[in-house]
Amino acid sequence: MSSPRNESEAYTAPVTGPRLVAEPHKDGVDTAVAAARRVVAALLRAGDGTGADMNEIAARLDAVADGLGAKALPIEDRLAEMWRGEGVTRHDPVTGPENALAPPLHLHGKEDGSVEGVVTLDLPYQGPPGHVHGGISALLLDHTLGVANHWGGPSGMTAELTLRYLRPTPLFEPLTVTGRQVSVEGSRIRTVGEIRAGGRTCVTAEGLFINKQLPRPS
Amino acid sequence: MSSPRNESEAYTAPVTGPRLVAEPHKDGVDTAVAAARRVVAALLRAGDGTGADMNEIAARLDAVADGLGAKALPIEDRLAEMWRGEGVTRHDPVTGPENALAPPLHLHGKEDGSVEGVVTLDLPYQGPPGHVHGGISALLLDHTLGVANHWGGPSGMTAELTLRYLRPTPLFEPLTVTGRQVSVEGSRIRTVGEIRAGGRTCVTAEGLFINKQLPRPS
Repeated sequence: MSSPRNESEAYTAPVTGPRLVAEPHKDGVDTAVAAARRVVAALLRAGDGTGADMNEIAARLDAVADGLGAKALPIEDRLAEMWRGEGVTRHDPVTGPENALAPPLHLHGKEDGSVEGVVTLDLPYQGPPGHVHGGISALLLDHTLGVANHWGGPSGMTAELTLRYLRPTPLFEPLTVTGRQVSVEGSRIRTVGEIRAGGRTCVTAEGLFINKQLPRPS
Repeated sequence: MSSPRNESEAYTAPVTGPRLVAEPHKDGVDTAVAAARRVVAALLRAGDGTGADMNEIAARLDAVADGLGAKALPIEDRLAEMWRGEGVTRHDPVTGPENALAPPLHLHGKEDGSVEGVVTLDLPYQGPPGHVHGGISALLLDHTLGVANHWGGPSGMTAELTLRYLRPTPLFEPLTVTGRQVSVEGSRIRTVGEIRAGGRTCVTAEGLFINKQLPRPS
């Protein structure tokens, strides 16, 4: 908000490099999830007292959920299906095109081994008035550090994560989220990242990851 | 998963003490948001290939969002409305009854000054196969530490947060989330918390908060 427009624009330039999130599907599920994101934001934007008939809206949404539920796979089968294939996931709460919790953040791999993405967050991600929830910044950074490990070297599970909040992170403006693996010693992987707004660093993250994975369901 | 049933049940006993989240509203908005949560989970559960007509579902959800959008307040007015009143919020992404991103976690204040809540997380919160995303644990804990500050003493904004992941946190079983303020020195507030499953600690958090607040919109 306090940065000059041209500086802000510099940071919203398209990120080049391979896209490190799942490719869109053709069967419409991504479109349905995008519409669900609109519903989540619109409900929060509407709140109460706007005159909308919320009980009627609840009934319409319940009908959608009931219809989907009737066609759902057993949970074990669905978990196995989710984890089939390689690399990036379609269902995580940060980049996943099938997950309406995800803003989604689109991360790209850069030639220097780092990853970067730009995202603008709306009301569902609010913590302090008009600003991003500190826990949401932690969520974005934990995930981005994990993707940076996939891109830059060995990857693993988070063992320790330290976040430093330097200034409030604004809603409604483009945020640049970055991650970069900095060292690998045996099974210990160290990775850093940050969130910037208008060229200024708002949050930094340092992560220690251990080079092991949970088994995939089958 | 590995704990005996009786130990797990001990941890899912209802938490006593004042509820530290907003009271339910009567006008149906909470019901509509609960239905939106069902849609988010059902979309992720369905994925692709279940035979559901996702384009038709997208159209139905877009119609709900369009209808709500037509009645929405200007964003400045909505922000002012959100931040009117005291204490707990209705819109945050952890406990907020108006926010479909929130599981929601219901936190209660205890006589010893700590706060505690029990929550079971489904597919939208997944990181590693069948387990909670590390960033989601960070989100729950950052918020819980903030509520613990409100309950136990002076509160403020997160300056630093360190998370240690001791073992994977399971989906689909009750998690106990706790927070407790441990010291206040001038404007520096130190607060800790953890997430337990079946009586075993999965994640711990240590936070440093600074006793200041962003201005509320008006």
